[in-house]
Amino acid sequence: MSKTVEFFFDFGSPAAYLAYSQLPRIAEQSGAELVWRPFLLGGVFQATGNRSPVEVPAKGAYMLADLARFAERYGVTYRHNPHFPINTLMLMRGAVALQMHQPDRFGPYVDAVFKAIWVDGRNMNDPSVVGAVLHEAGLDAGKLVALCGQQDVKDRLKAVTQEAVERGVFGAPTMFVAGRMYWGQDRLDFVREALSSN
Amino acid sequence: MSKTVEFFFDFGSPAAYLAYSQLPRIAEQSGAELVWRPFLLGGVFQATGNRSPVEVPAKGAYMLADLARFAERYGVTYRHNPHFPINTLMLMRGAVALQMHQPDRFGPYVDAVFKAIWVDGRNMNDPSVVGAVLHEAGLDAGKLVALCGQQDVKDRLKAVTQEAVERGVFGAPTMFVAGRMYWGQDRLDFVREALSSN
Repeated sequence: MSKTVEFFFDFGSPAAYLAYSQLPRIAEQSGAELVWRPFLLGGVFQATGNRSPVEVPAKGAYMLADLARFAERYGVTYRHNPHFPINTLMLMRGAVALQMHQPDRFGPYVDAVFKAIWVDGRNMNDPSVVGAVLHEAGLDAGKLVALCGQQDVKDRLKAVTQEAVERGVFGAPTMFVAGRMYWGQDRLDFVREALSSN
Repeated sequence: MSKTVEFFFDFGSPAAYLAYSQLPRIAEQSGAELVWRPFLLGGVFQATGNRSPVEVPAKGAYMLADLARFAERYGVTYRHNPHFPINTLMLMRGAVALQMHQPDRFGPYVDAVFKAIWVDGRNMNDPSVVGAVLHEAGLDAGKLVALCGQQDVKDRLKAVTQEAVERGVFGAPTMFVAGRMYWGQDRLDFVREALSSN
């Protein structure tokens, strides 16, 4: 019986970055398929009434320490982005566009964008920086910008975001295994358990 | 070198109940002293701008599933209280009163109140139910009510709540080990690590 884990992510979430750093290996070790679900976290916040933890200053400060502890536990590089929060509308459209129209470029794009934000501290609010990051990753920025302007891409991102809300998502990252929802990179152990149970 | 773990808790938090179910054993196994810090979560919410997860319906629904998963992992009984949220002002004053004036009664009181709310589903908003629960636990409800009216008790609860805010607390439960803060029953593994490191 083959299992799947759906991964709802937004590049702007540092917790989504940490989950991204672990989930492919967890899926592989479980013999499960990882289904990438790029969505727009801002849209989910708007629809659910949830908000970023950084809107409570004490919570935002703690979150930085907490993420650093998990990064250390995972053995991955994580640096809080000095330009946070990042407006990820175009970045998420880019992910959807490649999934739909150039699926072989999706992986390199996801790697490049997560690394630019959460390892290299680059300002992905700035289109010229985004262009440089894509170029460095061997991606065709001009072509991607054109794809992001297509209606089918815009509609798809909206639809996935709406689907997330309808399924109970209120934050990022969110994983689904066998109809059960898991919120947060700190629930990856439950995801692993769910994938290994029969 | 002896270690301590401070435990900021409010009876009204189901996550604090789950932490309470595990922390004494974690402290004991680590040879650490557990320092009980009853505080008023509502006061912390007011001071920090944080709010209960249940104020976002999707988050509240998920929280119930999440708590049940941890209860199963811990092997403890947990049932969401049908009278939630509980106004815990008097209950937290009771904890502080016993800590100050009858410390040998503090443990039985904490056990009785947590069990009444998160195992037996009783309505601890109702003073007559509180009286019955205390009586069943062999505690003198009349004497406790009198203690709760004392100014030193009221002041002490306010002072601990204020101290929590000043140290960065924004939710419950919150633990401190060696000056580092850990929020949530889902961070007990980090608390355990902190207590076992040298």
